[in-house]
Amino acid sequence: MAFSEFRPLDEKSLFDYIRATPALSEKIGSNVDEMKIQEVGDGNLNFVYIVVSPAGSLVIKQALPYVRCIGESWPMTKERAYFEATVLKEHSRLCPEHVPELYHFDRTMSLIGMKYLEPPHIILRKGLIAGIKYPLLAEHVSDYMAKTLYYTSLLYNTTTEHKRAVAEFCGNVEMCRLTEQVVFSDPYKVSHYNKWNSPYLDQDVVAVREDNELKIEVAELKAKFCERSQALLHGDLHTGSLMVTPESTQVIDPEFGFYGPMGYDIGAFIGNLILAYYAQDGHADASNDRKAYKEWLLKTIYDTWSLFEKKFTSLWNKHKDGEGEAYLPEIYNNSEVQQLVQKKFLIDLLHDSLGFGAAKMIRRIVGVAHVEDLESIEDQSRRAKCERQALEFAKSLLKGRRKFQSIGEVVLAIQQSQ
Amino acid sequence: MAFSEFRPLDEKSLFDYIRATPALSEKIGSNVDEMKIQEVGDGNLNFVYIVVSPAGSLVIKQALPYVRCIGESWPMTKERAYFEATVLKEHSRLCPEHVPELYHFDRTMSLIGMKYLEPPHIILRKGLIAGIKYPLLAEHVSDYMAKTLYYTSLLYNTTTEHKRAVAEFCGNVEMCRLTEQVVFSDPYKVSHYNKWNSPYLDQDVVAVREDNELKIEVAELKAKFCERSQALLHGDLHTGSLMVTPESTQVIDPEFGFYGPMGYDIGAFIGNLILAYYAQDGHADASNDRKAYKEWLLKTIYDTWSLFEKKFTSLWNKHKDGEGEAYLPEIYNNSEVQQLVQKKFLIDLLHDSLGFGAAKMIRRIVGVAHVEDLESIEDQSRRAKCERQALEFAKSLLKGRRKFQSIGEVVLAIQQSQ
Ligand SMILES: Nc1ncnc2c1ncn2[C@@H]1O[C@H](COP(=O)(O)OP(=O)(O)O)[C@@H](O)[C@H]1O
Ligand SMILES: Nc1ncnc2c1ncn2[C@@H]1O[C@H](COP(=O)(O)OP(=O)(O)O)[C@@H](O)[C@H]1O
Ligand SMILES: [Mg+2]
Ligand SMILES: [Mg+2]
Ligand SMILES: [Mg+2]
Ligand SMILES: [Mg+2]
Ligand SMILES: [Mg+2]
Repeated sequence: MAFSEFRPLDEKSLFDYIRATPALSEKIGSNVDEMKIQEVGDGNLNFVYIVVSPAGSLVIKQALPYVRCIGESWPMTKERAYFEATVLKEHSRLCPEHVPELYHFDRTMSLIGMKYLEPPHIILRKGLIAGIKYPLLAEHVSDYMAKTLYYTSLLYNTTTEHKRAVAEFCGNVEMCRLTEQVVFSDPYKVSHYNKWNSPYLDQDVVAVREDNELKIEVAELKAKFCERSQALLHGDLHTGSLMVTPESTQVIDPEFGFYGPMGYDIGAFIGNLILAYYAQDGHADASNDRKAYKEWLLKTIYDTWSLFEKKFTSLWNKHKDGEGEAYLPEIYNNSEVQQLVQKKFLIDLLHDSLGFGAAKMIRRIVGVAHVEDLESIEDQSRRAKCERQALEFAKSLLKGRRKFQSIGEVVLAIQQSQ
Repeated sequence: MAFSEFRPLDEKSLFDYIRATPALSEKIGSNVDEMKIQEVGDGNLNFVYIVVSPAGSLVIKQALPYVRCIGESWPMTKERAYFEATVLKEHSRLCPEHVPELYHFDRTMSLIGMKYLEPPHIILRKGLIAGIKYPLLAEHVSDYMAKTLYYTSLLYNTTTEHKRAVAEFCGNVEMCRLTEQVVFSDPYKVSHYNKWNSPYLDQDVVAVREDNELKIEVAELKAKFCERSQALLHGDLHTGSLMVTPESTQVIDPEFGFYGPMGYDIGAFIGNLILAYYAQDGHADASNDRKAYKEWLLKTIYDTWSLFEKKFTSLWNKHKDGEGEAYLPEIYNNSEVQQLVQKKFLIDLLHDSLGFGAAKMIRRIVGVAHVEDLESIEDQSRRAKCERQALEFAKSLLKGRRKFQSIGEVVLAIQQSQ
């Protein structure tokens, strides 16, 4: 068999691979000779091919044993594809509306076959830069987060199931280490991977490295990331991991998936929306001052958390007499105590989410991987102004996250920061 | 081979087993015919045999597939012996002064061979009931806790090592579930396993079940117990898991070992010392009012935490430039930030320890397994008075643990509670 050991595919060999793989060729129709293959990977890590034929389409994603955007000098286990496939399967079972179907997984080849999210689907981040409103975004993302986080937690599962799954995802340790480095460590130290808008932000970068209070809070978040197995996370839920149309929202790329703190996923999404917010002033022009769009972004932040809170609570109520071992119904046996534990759970989760969201913002401004929202602002001094505002807000959010009692207060603080 | 599949041993078959097992027979000397075997298990779960011959001695512990003190109606995996042996090996490597040497482990037979802790070693709990002072106890236990908790945490280890070990100990899930049930659940609900000093404590038991604030706090501790893989815990570090003389302190019985929150071990020990404190009034008599002994107990609580804090911090400082990934030296790079993170870490750990300690106290008064400190008070009304004081203090400690800024304040609160 031609693919009995790992080898990186290209357009040509992928053609042979698909022909030899019924789970894929059956999606493309029998006339495989007419299929067209195009590499479209714009992410940081992997190779992604769109395959279309008159009879069908699919996407192939292959992990190579290094970080694509850095090159072979930064090795990275290709086993990440196994965890991506495992999370895709689990999350699409829990929330099929918002996760593309997995067609095929080949562990030897670190290769995933999945549903092609056809145009007009685009990466959410690109839509946010273009100033496109997605009226259903908060509804959809809150749905995805509530379902995937609730159903993979001890609120729903027994300890036995939970520990089995936690043990399995301990295997995705290299991806966790990458996050530890690029999110929780490098931005707070001198690292040759770090990049920033120099010379404008030179002093800001030094200030981050010298902010003891910030570094103390980051240590707490890092410990939570490393030690708290609360739910099966996506692990990289920024606005570049969502493909959208005004009607559809699809979550891709869960290769960083593991059992971690719920707030890490929620924070990734909200933090990236806040980054998009601060980037808007850099995209405003005579034809569009982006003011209304900024309002829409704030509303989306507000709605995402509010709807998440509502949906998560309603799943909790729905299954409160089920198998979940965290809150036994014989203990949390009156509506007052039930409401109090939910309130406490959700305020703690809000604080975690704000902390992680802020950490994700900071790393996108002073760390190795930046976001197009800010990078695409051509005037560097204008860009620096946006970045500095975002950075200052993120720092105060990370340090002061426990002061916020509701998402409304957070949105107000964003507004007042400008 | 006679022992190729599991079977419960008795004095007779154990004799054959030892003869067939060089790792054991070599400890006993060649003259195995002169060896004497005695079952001494007084614990809740397992069978323990002391084996002595003129040439040597050892202890054999065998796990049967049920809970000894309940019987076959409460099945319990005998695989716990594997985790006990694994923790014994690891903890005795890290702290050989205070953990008996493992001689032999047989997974098929769920059987451990270890060093016999000879008389005058007795179980610490019995010494505390008898009013015996152990001047080195705090020094020794703080040493054991500092070393085992520090060296198995991310303060010392890489994420890679940590997640591998966490995954392995996810396998001890049945023991974790037992703890979840008997410590964090049953005491707060109606359960036919619960016992209490009836009728004296009937109202107190109801009050625990109806205390919403208490139940909310217990949920937070339970989540930490289930989700936070901070260090390799002993998992059952009460005063019945220590064998002592005035000069020696030995930790036995880590069958509940797993990666959990450090405060669970520290709290188990301190909580059981507080129980011993409240039991003293029940043991006072004309010849000994136990007042001085109560002072010694308070001093031991104070010293245990203070010395732990000192030793743990000094291990942290000693290895701060090592492999540990939690606090990178390039980030925590000045003495001010180093001191601040340590202070925050230790105050959070104190709060965890107080919370878990309080939960352990409560379960020993209203849950399935009680402590001899209180059970041995013959006058039931006198016993009830001690129990109620302990219970009230534990409840207020659990709910108010975050108010305490130092162990001195905790000791003061114990004193003022009487
Ligand atoms: N199922 C899909 N349908 C359509 N396009 C996709 C699909 N999966 C990935 N892509 C495209 O490929 C890009 C990279 O995919 P991604 O999974 O994010 O890879 P990486 O892990 O390298 O970031 C995405 O930004 C998107 O444009
Ligand atoms: N190494 C040892 N040396 C001497 N006595 C021991 C040793 N291990 C256990 N014992 C005795 O056996 C009793 C039960 O042992 P333990 O390990 O606590 O079992 P269990 O898991 O059933 O609680 C102890 O209380 C102690 O008296
Ligand atoms: Mg991506
Ligand atoms: Mg964990
Ligand atoms: Mg990716
Ligand atoms: Mg025991
Ligand atoms: Mg035991």
